[in-house]
Formats: sequence, structure tokens, C-alpha cells
Amino acid sequence: MSTKDDAFSKLKPNWKLWLEYDGKYVFGPGAFAILGSIREKGTITDGAKALGMSYRYAWGVVRKIEQETGIKLLETFKGGTEGGGGARITEFGRRLMNLYASVQEGFEKASHRITVTPS
Amino acid sequence: MSTKDDAFSKLKPNWKLWLEYDGKYVFGPGAFAILGSIREKGTITDGAKALGMSYRYAWGVVRKIEQETGIKLLETFKGGTEGGGGARITEFGRRLMNLYASVQEGFEKASHRITVTPS
Repeated sequence: MSTKDDAFSKLKPNWKLWLEYDGKYVFGPGAFAILGSIREKGTITDGAKALGMSYRYAWGVVRKIEQETGIKLLETFKGGTEGGGGARITEFGRRLMNLYASVQEGFEKASHRITVTPS
Repeated sequence: MSTKDDAFSKLKPNWKLWLEYDGKYVFGPGAFAILGSIREKGTITDGAKALGMSYRYAWGVVRKIEQETGIKLLETFKGGTEGGGGARITEFGRRLMNLYASVQEGFEKASHRITVTPS
């Protein structure tokens, strides 16, 4: 029994979460990280760089979601104090991020609750 | 606003859940389905067939988990009323299945709760 209990205690749930739009994959951990990084850094270029991605790749991920949902996730603007402009997450983008984060948090809690007290 | 709300209501979380053993993938939806089918049908052959899989494939999935954890998931026996013998899920196998099912159920509840009341 002791070996089985040891083995059991080494088991941990893990998962990948994504959002589907009309039943089709549309928003996963990559997009969530990209939008979060753009929000933090203020531009697509800097947000992508902070994740070790090219502007082209990060923007491609965002644009694909915009095309599939028909709604903008980013609005870009010119100027500002440093004169270079930047990118802002739209309200829809924020709602997508919040939904993803809320479900992820719910999964973490559920996973923890069950792992701590196996039946 | 109405288009964004429509778009938002078309979003649904989906996920893949698996169990890791010592940080390594060991038990996912395929293994869960295979063990469930073997339990229901009583033999590896019939359990595999009910899922459209070969005996070889189903048994390979089970054996890989046994090798990685060092603990048997199935015990096979001979005889019985029909004389053909069969396969039983071990206690450890049942605990794996229960853990997987409990986390999956927790995720379903968490996902539903959050999808129904988006913030």
C-alpha cells in the first residue's frame, strides 16, 4: 500500500485552457500572454519583445482573433509623451482576458481542492 | 455594444486535462476512456473494440502508464462463467480514474459558473 500511496502523491493535474468562438479554437494561453504583455509594455513591439517574440508573430496572433470574432482587441494610437504612439487593449479584449483569467483561476482552485483531499 | 455582447456570448471555455507523474504527462482523456471501457466490457479486447481501437493500442496505453508509475492498473484473470477470462481495474487504477474524474467535474462546474455570469 505504501508504494501505491507514494505513487498517488506524485500525481498532479495539469491542463490547457482555451476559449472557443462558435465552437472553434480562438483564444489560448499564447494570446493571453501576448495581450497581457502589450498591456504592460504599451506597444505591440515591446510587448512581443518581452516574450521573445517578433512583432509580426504577436500581431498575427491578435489579428487572427480579431478576424475570427469580427471585433478589435487592440486600438493603436500615435503620439503621447514619448511621441512613439502605442497600443491599447479594447474593452472586448479586456473582457476576453478577464474571462480567460477567471476560468483559469477557477480551475486552479478546483485542482488544488481536489489534489489536497483525494477521495 | 450589441455586436460585442453577441460575440462575447459565443465564447465558451474548453480544456484538456491530464495527470502528471513526477512532472511528466502520464494519464489523459484517452487513458481515462480506455480504462472506463475495459471496466464496462470486462476485457481489454472488448473495451478497446467499443472505442474503435485495437487491443494492441489500448494495452499499449495502459502498459505505458504502468511502466511510468511502476504500478499495475489492470489485473487479468482466466476462466469465469464464459470461460474466457477478463481484465479488472486495480485499486490504483480506480484511484487514478477517480482523481481524473473529480478534477474534470470540478473544472466543468468552475467553467459553467464563470460562463454563466461573466464579469
